[in-house]
Amino acid sequence: MARNSSHTAGLRVQLPLLCLLFQAAIVILFSFFVRYNHETDSSLWHQSNHSIMDNDFYFRYPSFQDVHTMIFIGFGFLMTFLQRYGFSSIGFNFLLSAFSLQWSTLVQGFLHSFHEGKIYIGVESMINADFCTGAVLISFGAVLGKTSPVQLLLMSLLEVTLFGINEFILLNLLGVKDAGGSMTIHTFGAYFGLVLSRVLYRSQLDKSKHREGSVYHSDLFAMIGTIFLWIFWPSFNSAITHTGDGQHRTALNTYYSLGASTLSTFALSALLNREGKLDMVHIQNAALAGGVVVGTSAEMMITPFGALVAGFLAGTISTLGYKFLMPILESKFKVQDTCGVHNLHGMPGVLGALLGALVAALATHQTYGEGLEKIFPLVAKGHRSATSQAVYQLLGLFVTLVLASLGGGIGETR
Amino acid sequence: MARNSSHTAGLRVQLPLLCLLFQAAIVILFSFFVRYNHETDSSLWHQSNHSIMDNDFYFRYPSFQDVHTMIFIGFGFLMTFLQRYGFSSIGFNFLLSAFSLQWSTLVQGFLHSFHEGKIYIGVESMINADFCTGAVLISFGAVLGKTSPVQLLLMSLLEVTLFGINEFILLNLLGVKDAGGSMTIHTFGAYFGLVLSRVLYRSQLDKSKHREGSVYHSDLFAMIGTIFLWIFWPSFNSAITHTGDGQHRTALNTYYSLGASTLSTFALSALLNREGKLDMVHIQNAALAGGVVVGTSAEMMITPFGALVAGFLAGTISTLGYKFLMPILESKFKVQDTCGVHNLHGMPGVLGALLGALVAALATHQTYGEGLEKIFPLVAKGHRSATSQAVYQLLGLFVTLVLASLGGGIGETR
Amino acid sequence: MARNSSHTAGLRVQLPLLCLLFQAAIVILFSFFVRYNHETDSSLWHQSNHSIMDNDFYFRYPSFQDVHTMIFIGFGFLMTFLQRYGFSSIGFNFLLSAFSLQWSTLVQGFLHSFHEGKIYIGVESMINADFCTGAVLISFGAVLGKTSPVQLLLMSLLEVTLFGINEFILLNLLGVKDAGGSMTIHTFGAYFGLVLSRVLYRSQLDKSKHREGSVYHSDLFAMIGTIFLWIFWPSFNSAITHTGDGQHRTALNTYYSLGASTLSTFALSALLNREGKLDMVHIQNAALAGGVVVGTSAEMMITPFGALVAGFLAGTISTLGYKFLMPILESKFKVQDTCGVHNLHGMPGVLGALLGALVAALATHQTYGEGLEKIFPLVAKGHRSATSQAVYQLLGLFVTLVLASLGGGIGETR
Repeated sequence: MARNSSHTAGLRVQLPLLCLLFQAAIVILFSFFVRYNHETDSSLWHQSNHSIMDNDFYFRYPSFQDVHTMIFIGFGFLMTFLQRYGFSSIGFNFLLSAFSLQWSTLVQGFLHSFHEGKIYIGVESMINADFCTGAVLISFGAVLGKTSPVQLLLMSLLEVTLFGINEFILLNLLGVKDAGGSMTIHTFGAYFGLVLSRVLYRSQLDKSKHREGSVYHSDLFAMIGTIFLWIFWPSFNSAITHTGDGQHRTALNTYYSLGASTLSTFALSALLNREGKLDMVHIQNAALAGGVVVGTSAEMMITPFGALVAGFLAGTISTLGYKFLMPILESKFKVQDTCGVHNLHGMPGVLGALLGALVAALATHQTYGEGLEKIFPLVAKGHRSATSQAVYQLLGLFVTLVLASLGGGIGETR
Repeated sequence: MARNSSHTAGLRVQLPLLCLLFQAAIVILFSFFVRYNHETDSSLWHQSNHSIMDNDFYFRYPSFQDVHTMIFIGFGFLMTFLQRYGFSSIGFNFLLSAFSLQWSTLVQGFLHSFHEGKIYIGVESMINADFCTGAVLISFGAVLGKTSPVQLLLMSLLEVTLFGINEFILLNLLGVKDAGGSMTIHTFGAYFGLVLSRVLYRSQLDKSKHREGSVYHSDLFAMIGTIFLWIFWPSFNSAITHTGDGQHRTALNTYYSLGASTLSTFALSALLNREGKLDMVHIQNAALAGGVVVGTSAEMMITPFGALVAGFLAGTISTLGYKFLMPILESKFKVQDTCGVHNLHGMPGVLGALLGALVAALATHQTYGEGLEKIFPLVAKGHRSATSQAVYQLLGLFVTLVLASLGGGIGETR
Repeated sequence: MARNSSHTAGLRVQLPLLCLLFQAAIVILFSFFVRYNHETDSSLWHQSNHSIMDNDFYFRYPSFQDVHTMIFIGFGFLMTFLQRYGFSSIGFNFLLSAFSLQWSTLVQGFLHSFHEGKIYIGVESMINADFCTGAVLISFGAVLGKTSPVQLLLMSLLEVTLFGINEFILLNLLGVKDAGGSMTIHTFGAYFGLVLSRVLYRSQLDKSKHREGSVYHSDLFAMIGTIFLWIFWPSFNSAITHTGDGQHRTALNTYYSLGASTLSTFALSALLNREGKLDMVHIQNAALAGGVVVGTSAEMMITPFGALVAGFLAGTISTLGYKFLMPILESKFKVQDTCGVHNLHGMPGVLGALLGALVAALATHQTYGEGLEKIFPLVAKGHRSATSQAVYQLLGLFVTLVLASLGGGIGETR
């Protein structure tokens, strides 16, 4: 695995120590605070006369497994398109994820489901832990090849914590909707990573040059990652939406949005190339932007037409980003975005947040019927107008951008 | 990606233009015609007091995701066994699928679920769109390496349309049963592609020579495709069968049929080789014939024994096809079947249609009990005898062969 | 595929003959004995007025597909880390599995569900057949590269039979709990393979030398196997546990155990290397030990804390095993464990059995509530004390070790 030889001596000891220390801390915190919830505890579950179908496991676990596949296979193999980091990307992806899912169980538990001194867990906390891990992996994509595993573990420790705080502010304090995480996962992960990448820029300048770019052979491995992300994205966006029409509609919208972003990516990629050739980096990345862009709104009544338009735009701006914006980011802003997460997660994430605000502003009782209280409970109860909900959505985006940038900047101090 | 250099100039413009044109047309048609159905629309769903389990999402979505994996990972990677087309196969597979699933939503919607001027969509339309995409990819396998992406997109436009018409004739007009698509998907896709391949033969003769055949290294990538198709085929055949015993039985029959076709493939492959060596092309392809051959009948009461026999025969004729028939097809009939889809989808598909007719002819009230009206509603209601149902099944095969051949032949005019 | 040239002549005939013979025997036995059960038979299912949700398909099939992926993709690709056997491992994995799942349907059917002369099958028998196949593949990992496919098929014939007998003794006669198979699958498969590997040692000594060890390139393929095993292990352990809290808790415990074993594997691997480098063989294998170690106990109330500790220990002893024990096994005990199954399945399996006994000993009515009769029915009914259950669990481990060793030793006579 790629490491700075100057650091090797320290790392022999540092990486094992950090892993053991983190794992020990997690074990101790689990022993004090983490308990089975009423759906996973034998005694609690059997206290009342449940039907099996009352157990959320059967509505969430298949989605969880799809999300799990995206995190470990999807992100892991996608990053192999940078051949020099083929194994690092998968190996460190594995390490960071295994740590982050444990640590985020604690952070999210303390913030979201801390009752009488205990954190109660089940399949929904597993999904949320994987979601948080997704944000960490997005940031990893921005700094791939520039950091040691020790630095990456420290980054994860910080990012998981801030992710939980940001999510708490958005969902619990501001009443923002973001089931598929356009803001909380994609925007947060991308800008955290981009700011961190800028911080790491100076000292690494020479070494990192010429490291980007893919080769033909590694493209097939990368396509494993791309395709698994692409096919399971409907499960990602719908994993924690409301059961029934909510989950169903979210999967449907994401499916069509991805179809459209794939076509616009192929079109733009060929159009922008002098010889009309398709650029594999576009196909492997920008085609996925359709999943990111409907992260906030896929649960809402955006209509199948709206999903297609959103996906089309996302594929377009993402491909344009890889072609035109990325070189500028590096030369003018000194941000070396190794995997181009700004194009795949950053811009489509922000666009998704804006789209979510727009769709929220258009929400009416007529369109949503009795389902309005599931999607916009504060609007349904009359605590907020639809316009006001839209403003809160925008506020959520602002908070996310601020916290992500601050978080990425803290890396400088280390 | 492989392209004819003589065409390159035009393609720089043609591919982007076609993608954008198709996507724009789809967006416009969606805006006029496509709406959420009662399970995906917030207002409609909440009009009546549903239990969550009334939503088909929970009975179909896991199967949908397995089918989705087969279409994008399975077909995509299987075709990498032809090393020269490694990336083309996956890239074009991706493009054609992303287009076809959108276009078939419209075609199938107009033909199958057009009510009061609108198409209503949900998870079942997603599965059907993926099924239609499967037929397109089968045809793609027959012409792989001989066509530009522009030609492939035009092929998809035509094939999706004819697929919908053929399916409408079989299922709606003739009352034929074909849940797993031995006829509508495999036979149709194979013969459409084979006729098209013959049409493309003349001009491509010299260039295509020596392009077939696999190399050791690409075999591992191809096995990713093979195995994902193999493991998820039970979900493919059962995805739109009746819930309860129907879905359960279909998955079971397919599972055992695939086991048997794998053993007969290994046996025949070693037996036919002078040194007793296994031919990887057989393993990667013929082992899958067990899934194709029970496409029509797996929902019926073929018995576990029947499933094994069907799979065994399918693996046998498929392997024999690769060994003996394929060279004849090329030399005598000028059909260059790049991936051998005639052996994997064509012959096993026809065999599956015949098997379906046989099993239909044997259907009795005693064997099916009250379930007869689910599997053969016209027989259960007394509108048809079992023998008559069998005749309609054969008629369905005939219609499929005719429409597929005509469709593939239209390609000549372009 | 790798074969001994001296055997080739015979193999040209032997492999096809054996495949055809086995398949023919299975077809005949199926025709006499195997029938659809009440959930897969059209007539039986419709005799009573079922709700669709009474059909176990909807509670088991998603787990089945995850297990199926582990068996065919997970095990198949994991073994490619030994580059010389890249294709053999996947091809023979495919053949052995396709045979074993059919044969074990019969063996397990005769032993577990033989009613009035018939074996009745459904999704649960499919899962159990895949489980048995898992044990065969573990043994295959111990002898990879030393045996012909003919020998491997004969091994499978014997092992599947003994697996069924061992499972029958443990579950039916001794009343042992082992839902995820720490004993019946991992311990049994590992020690069967290890004893067989010792038997094969002498004649193969020279040829096998220098064959072990991975190369950089094949590592990416192996990681496909590792990650799919890792992500779906929660489904493996929970596939046949009790619906409701049981299945939910089992998945949760396995998820956290795997997280902890991954961190301890990374820590130990770097710590034990002179240059602090991570050893890919450790990452690809030992990180999975967390799934093995909770196979027996994940259904029980081990607490999330207990799952973490178990996983941590398993990753640790597994990595230590690869580093220190494996060379000793070869030099002192003449056991060449090609894939190191003793480290991944053997030791963690035994540890998992001991852990299961410990947790059983601690079972109380207070902890399990009314759920006690699901997890420990004999204890709940007062037929056994918790301590006595623990003793039976240990007896189960003993029986497994004896039968596996005897079984592996029988190989010598051939």
